[in-house]
Amino acid sequence: MKKLLFVPFFTLLAFISTATYSETVLNAPNGIKYPTGLENWRVLGTSYRTDNNTQRVILGNSTAIKASRSGKTNPWPEGSILAKLVWKNVKHPNWEEAIVPGNFIHSEIMVKNSSHYKTTGGWGYARWIGASQEPYGNDEAFSQECFSCHSKVKNKDYVFTIPAQTP
Amino acid sequence: MKKLLFVPFFTLLAFISTATYSETVLNAPNGIKYPTGLENWRVLGTSYRTDNNTQRVILGNSTAIKASRSGKTNPWPEGSILAKLVWKNVKHPNWEEAIVPGNFIHSEIMVKNSSHYKTTGGWGYARWIGASQEPYGNDEAFSQECFSCHSKVKNKDYVFTIPAQTP
Repeated sequence: MKKLLFVPFFTLLAFISTATYSETVLNAPNGIKYPTGLENWRVLGTSYRTDNNTQRVILGNSTAIKASRSGKTNPWPEGSILAKLVWKNVKHPNWEEAIVPGNFIHSEIMVKNSSHYKTTGGWGYARWIGASQEPYGNDEAFSQECFSCHSKVKNKDYVFTIPAQTP
Repeated sequence: MKKLLFVPFFTLLAFISTATYSETVLNAPNGIKYPTGLENWRVLGTSYRTDNNTQRVILGNSTAIKASRSGKTNPWPEGSILAKLVWKNVKHPNWEEAIVPGNFIHSEIMVKNSSHYKTTGGWGYARWIGASQEPYGNDEAFSQECFSCHSKVKNKDYVFTIPAQTP
């Protein structure tokens, strides 16, 4: 175990960040698997939505975090996965000017694989609903719904998230 | 290196989560040091503030994350560190109903050490302003300002953050 102390930090981090996939959550209709440990990924940003009364944190796998921190996100590199955890907005019980996460609504990811997802701008989309993480969509066509909105930001490689400035 | 594959995941995680402190960011006036790599910590929640037009992500060190995921946060365990990264709210340029992080405002932490911080409910407070991370407060008395607000949630061990539900 002592040898561990001499393994560079980023080697360890890369090891931990290697994606594994859930064996209990069903795949999205387009075959995208739910990455286990999504909730442990590092933060890219936050967002508060007034149109559907939700707030979310946007996370990235190690490829996406590395890209965002070096400012190389247009295009995002192959293998990037961006994830959102989305909650309903509720007032904090002790500070009503603070709007905080209520019920968990869904998790969603977009996976960069330009050759595999040619018809949706190089990104594969997936969403899992609620605490039970039911895959969203009846068939592969659901991706076009995602792609339709994301086409608004085609010039940002189809990504709405602008990585938040950190110190 | 092959042996690494057999080291349990949480052993690795605990190793990575061991706090180190910045040698460039100045200590808060009460002596609290800025933990390096704060921006890599895992998410406890998010918050959108209507009173000061900011949004924030709340992160935890490994002690805090372990406590929140096992529902043991009242009291939070000794050694817990909660951190907030705070940004000004701005409208997303391509989706105006989405309010997203603008300029970085400050980072702040609260550190649980019941014996050391008896006069502020067992928590030590610190804040660093802006991208340059200037310590907030002229002298130790600044902590009373933090403590005054946090006393509203004395029955939650002085913590406003309600860990967000994740799948």
